[in-house]
Amino acid sequence: MNNIITNRQVCLANRPKGLPKENDWSIINGTIPKIEQGQVLTKIKYISIDPAMRGWLNDSPSYVPPVGLGSVMRALTVGEIIESKNDSFHVGDWVSGLDGVQNYAVSNGSEYIKADLSIAPPQTYLGTLGIAGLTAYCGLINVGKLQSNETILVSGAAGSVGAHVGQIAKIKGNKVIGIAGGSKKCAYLIDKLGFDAAIDYKKGALLENIKQNCPDGIDLFFDNVGGITLDAGLSVINVGARVIICGAISQYNLSKEIEGPSNYLLLLRRRARMEGFIYFDFRTDWPSMLRELAEWRSAGKIYGLEDITEGQVDIFPSTLLRLFSGDNFGKLIIKLPD
Amino acid sequence: MNNIITNRQVCLANRPKGLPKENDWSIINGTIPKIEQGQVLTKIKYISIDPAMRGWLNDSPSYVPPVGLGSVMRALTVGEIIESKNDSFHVGDWVSGLDGVQNYAVSNGSEYIKADLSIAPPQTYLGTLGIAGLTAYCGLINVGKLQSNETILVSGAAGSVGAHVGQIAKIKGNKVIGIAGGSKKCAYLIDKLGFDAAIDYKKGALLENIKQNCPDGIDLFFDNVGGITLDAGLSVINVGARVIICGAISQYNLSKEIEGPSNYLLLLRRRARMEGFIYFDFRTDWPSMLRELAEWRSAGKIYGLEDITEGQVDIFPSTLLRLFSGDNFGKLIIKLPD
Repeated sequence: MNNIITNRQVCLANRPKGLPKENDWSIINGTIPKIEQGQVLTKIKYISIDPAMRGWLNDSPSYVPPVGLGSVMRALTVGEIIESKNDSFHVGDWVSGLDGVQNYAVSNGSEYIKADLSIAPPQTYLGTLGIAGLTAYCGLINVGKLQSNETILVSGAAGSVGAHVGQIAKIKGNKVIGIAGGSKKCAYLIDKLGFDAAIDYKKGALLENIKQNCPDGIDLFFDNVGGITLDAGLSVINVGARVIICGAISQYNLSKEIEGPSNYLLLLRRRARMEGFIYFDFRTDWPSMLRELAEWRSAGKIYGLEDITEGQVDIFPSTLLRLFSGDNFGKLIIKLPD
Repeated sequence: MNNIITNRQVCLANRPKGLPKENDWSIINGTIPKIEQGQVLTKIKYISIDPAMRGWLNDSPSYVPPVGLGSVMRALTVGEIIESKNDSFHVGDWVSGLDGVQNYAVSNGSEYIKADLSIAPPQTYLGTLGIAGLTAYCGLINVGKLQSNETILVSGAAGSVGAHVGQIAKIKGNKVIGIAGGSKKCAYLIDKLGFDAAIDYKKGALLENIKQNCPDGIDLFFDNVGGITLDAGLSVINVGARVIICGAISQYNLSKEIEGPSNYLLLLRRRARMEGFIYFDFRTDWPSMLRELAEWRSAGKIYGLEDITEGQVDIFPSTLLRLFSGDNFGKLIIKLPD
């Protein structure tokens, strides 16, 4: 063997039904193309593992095209520029982008956000200063029109987005109730993140517990879970409430039809709205959002727990499954070997 | 018997399960109270029969309290003032209000809207210049933020609200597709009301027909029906679409749980919103809306078909059922004997 550097890549082999299985992926040793004028070569250091990935595997129209069969799996990444023929980027710059589950990527940089390591370590650009913080911010402020002195319910509250939702809602002067699985996560929401209350859905009686903790109803429901959780939250919405649909992790891997919210007619009775969003749509506002998120982070007002696994891209298939088992705790990230 | 005038009243006897049955009602001869200072006595001439009535019979919190057991059934009405101790109203004035299913009502007039018979006949104040026109207007313009050059889908399109939705959307320069039951109603939508297309749901293949008539998707879905109709409409929403929840007539009389829209996650993929509303909430805007509706009506741009049954209040229970059988065609109204 010579010193040939290979680009190890996780590619989609089959469209999964239900939970993605090992043989839905193929892991190959690709090559690193030469860069052309205007391009950069990035060595990927961190890969973000996100619930949205499950949707990208389906062959159905969405906000981005499905990952093609045989294509490298799409993923948010943070990496270091190691070669540049683009005046906007220099070797040694750190960037976040959508470089996929592989070791090296070639890009023209147009989608890159520079990661300033003097503000935060690189992996933070996949958490508080990346998808998690930005999704929470866009959903609460831009879509949810969060005010102060409101009652906010967030499901998947110990997930990376949910944790940021709760903390931002607290910064803005609201009462925040989180739904999470297990007493450890619930204690964390209250003790570390400052939630007003946390409901352990694994203990059952979800609706009763929501009613008990939200005696005056809820003004904003940030839902990451779907299914019975969405229905339970809908049942306590106030007049004028906003139900923000960020995801439905309980529903992504069902082989059967998705459970629609049978309580949707409360949107009529309570003159409320249910709205979906994608944080990519607010890209032009990201710079100002990131400044605010960075200030809150520096001031200790917002904390992003990370759940980092080190290894080659080969661990991607099993790491992805941890999202859906409820096993992970904090922003799930793969750190690639140097 | 002396010449005692009785006030015949339809009262709620039992809370119905499913479709209201005859014995869910009691019909009694009430008395006409003396009016006090500040009050008026109204002789009710027209009673509006509306799908919302079904919801008012349930013992569950809503935008208005449930009709109490033993109470006169709530209904929108048009009547004539026959006695007045209120300076704002004179004998001979016509008014619309919520005077219920009975012959006479006492009121302080605070909820009354005057019906100007020089503009339109009295029953029009229950149709184009009442709940039907105002509901369509509020839902499309205030809630749905209707633009021009959009594609609008409306279900229950031959119903009184749906027919006004389609005509207003046409006035505003949009493409309008209606869903209705039967070829007679569908022909009416196109030939009389100027819809661009009409889909007969009774012929089946609803989703395929929607896709065929809306090849570029829909920007606004005004839903009066719920169930599979809502799911079919959701499946073709465009990015930024508004799904306006006005009612769910397919679901009101189910004994089983309401069918939630399993396609609700398209709100996320398409960054769309689903919003409920009640036209009462826009009461302060009604005067300007009514001026606009009256102008369109005078100019022949908007037409309100009426389905008027004459008789005593005793016909209310059977007339109400016609709403849910799909039998009525146009705004359903009871005209009381003079």
